[in-house]
Amino acid sequence: MITLFTDFGLAGPYTGQMKAVLAHAAPGVAVIDLFADAPAQNPKAGAYLLPPYAGRFPLGSVCLAVVDPGVGSPRRALAVEADGRWYVGPDNGLFEIVLRRAAVARTFEIVWRPEPLSASFHGRDLFAPIAARLARGAPLGEAARPVAVAPHPDWQDDLAEIVYVDTYGNAMTGLRGSVVDPTCEIEIAGHRLRHACTFADLPEGAAFWYENSNGLVEIAANRARADARLGIKIGTPLIWRG
Amino acid sequence: MITLFTDFGLAGPYTGQMKAVLAHAAPGVAVIDLFADAPAQNPKAGAYLLPPYAGRFPLGSVCLAVVDPGVGSPRRALAVEADGRWYVGPDNGLFEIVLRRAAVARTFEIVWRPEPLSASFHGRDLFAPIAARLARGAPLGEAARPVAVAPHPDWQDDLAEIVYVDTYGNAMTGLRGSVVDPTCEIEIAGHRLRHACTFADLPEGAAFWYENSNGLVEIAANRARADARLGIKIGTPLIWRG
Amino acid sequence: MITLFTDFGLAGPYTGQMKAVLAHAAPGVAVIDLFADAPAQNPKAGAYLLPPYAGRFPLGSVCLAVVDPGVGSPRRALAVEADGRWYVGPDNGLFEIVLRRAAVARTFEIVWRPEPLSASFHGRDLFAPIAARLARGAPLGEAARPVAVAPHPDWQDDLAEIVYVDTYGNAMTGLRGSVVDPTCEIEIAGHRLRHACTFADLPEGAAFWYENSNGLVEIAANRARADARLGIKIGTPLIWRG
Repeated sequence: MITLFTDFGLAGPYTGQMKAVLAHAAPGVAVIDLFADAPAQNPKAGAYLLPPYAGRFPLGSVCLAVVDPGVGSPRRALAVEADGRWYVGPDNGLFEIVLRRAAVARTFEIVWRPEPLSASFHGRDLFAPIAARLARGAPLGEAARPVAVAPHPDWQDDLAEIVYVDTYGNAMTGLRGSVVDPTCEIEIAGHRLRHACTFADLPEGAAFWYENSNGLVEIAANRARADARLGIKIGTPLIWRG
Repeated sequence: MITLFTDFGLAGPYTGQMKAVLAHAAPGVAVIDLFADAPAQNPKAGAYLLPPYAGRFPLGSVCLAVVDPGVGSPRRALAVEADGRWYVGPDNGLFEIVLRRAAVARTFEIVWRPEPLSASFHGRDLFAPIAARLARGAPLGEAARPVAVAPHPDWQDDLAEIVYVDTYGNAMTGLRGSVVDPTCEIEIAGHRLRHACTFADLPEGAAFWYENSNGLVEIAANRARADARLGIKIGTPLIWRG
Repeated sequence: MITLFTDFGLAGPYTGQMKAVLAHAAPGVAVIDLFADAPAQNPKAGAYLLPPYAGRFPLGSVCLAVVDPGVGSPRRALAVEADGRWYVGPDNGLFEIVLRRAAVARTFEIVWRPEPLSASFHGRDLFAPIAARLARGAPLGEAARPVAVAPHPDWQDDLAEIVYVDTYGNAMTGLRGSVVDPTCEIEIAGHRLRHACTFADLPEGAAFWYENSNGLVEIAANRARADARLGIKIGTPLIWRG
């Protein structure tokens, strides 16, 4: 299984062109659109979103992760194996939290280059062929060499900010539910929010926080857009109090 | 074949996560996005949209239908077999019209529960595994038991309201074309509309009604958005006169 | 491999219904969403967008191309083989540039008609079954007969207009990069733009032109929407000066 985590957006030919490469090079392998609307040009927010989502897929699955504002610059291309799953994409911090949380990990620089390689679409030309190879179970071989990935020591283990707003206006944070006790209140954008277990527990329109179905702390409002109601978006910070 | 009928919207990780479950549990089965933008939180409108669309798919196909405002509440989970096709989703009226129009139907309550079961995403955790099982041709077995589904006697056999507005601004009604004679005029939002066979029959901008390619009465305008031009949306009522 | 090039938009049931036909009639064949947002009702703009995108797919692939404002009128249905790839869709100019650039091409009128054939959805009822047949490697046989397609002699070989604006606001032109020298400036909507190789070469917000990853001249701005900044959209003309 190959999962796609990109900021390509929903429209346009980009995801399709990448899928055509995958279908050709790894026929019969399931390809899943996980996020086509990952935080745009924002590898840090993506880094906290990736593990709770990609980390749930079956062992052996490959996450093709392309949030790549530096495409065309000399940033490196990576293939990362973490706890039995592969991640392929640019070396810009996107895999920082996957690596930090992994019990076992190996990191490789992709040194293979296709001919031709476009300047603006490495997702299609460089990363997709490598992801297809890994999804077929083939070794990286000469295509990559072991490399140390420089960490981002200033990044926290959990990020007390909004990292994604979904189609309903629910706002995911970079905090795992395990680090915030349900007795805590969350303060964000001048609002104080209490914990609830499910949407159905609250009056219509009420905002609250809960642990979402992938284990992240999420800000929501019952049958209303929490983002609009609270004035929050990707990057809005929060604090919590016991 | 598994078809998806949801109000998850186009963005975000929800459809992808559900598809990953299906790909893992029913490998090689085609999964088709039918509606990702079914009427939001509106099982009644969905109930009239489902049969003309899902009912066209091949015998043995499974429609995974998740419009589920009550997720997390104790509403039941259903598997319905109607005229040789399966429907899996919440017990909230979504399958009312499928059942009413079926020549032969069986209804089951899904009693199996996965471990863990999230409070907010039964589409992925509960309904998708059951849909995958049925799509593989496996029996429900212990996972479900026959149950009577309470009907909604106040719902009409056809719904004289808008139930869906498409990307072009065309507005589908809950009326089958067979119940409205082409000689009739439709009155909606203060406008009177005549029947036309195809878009090409009308002057540019003119609004009209026709029977769409799935047999529903639909309000459209030639090369214009009927919804904006007429001021109509999901829930707008209409009448017709012979 | 079957690729989809349509103006159906991202929402609604249309692409899914077409894919269900393909999955049923050509099981196991990969189906790729190339453009679901091809220029709406605009076969001329589509004609210049199609070759650089569809022409990159593997030999033997089938492009199901449905931009069909004349559906329901007596316009012909075509199957075109050009340089080893098939194109299926309406006879309205959409394949003009594919044909003009092909070294070897054959053109057929589809004479087969399904029963029933809807008036408004030939993509599903007429074109998809033919595309599936070709993707399976089956001959057209009685379903089609050789036909001469009338050319559009007033259309240029390259179109000096915007033909597509992507999700980032980048604006593709109908010009191949090979016809505009990198030393040239492009004038569009009162702006003069110089060439750059990649986004990373420019200061944030600066507009420029470059040859995109499919070989088309494209107007972009570094980390900004070029369409909004320059006031350009599909149809905006441009000139270039050496």
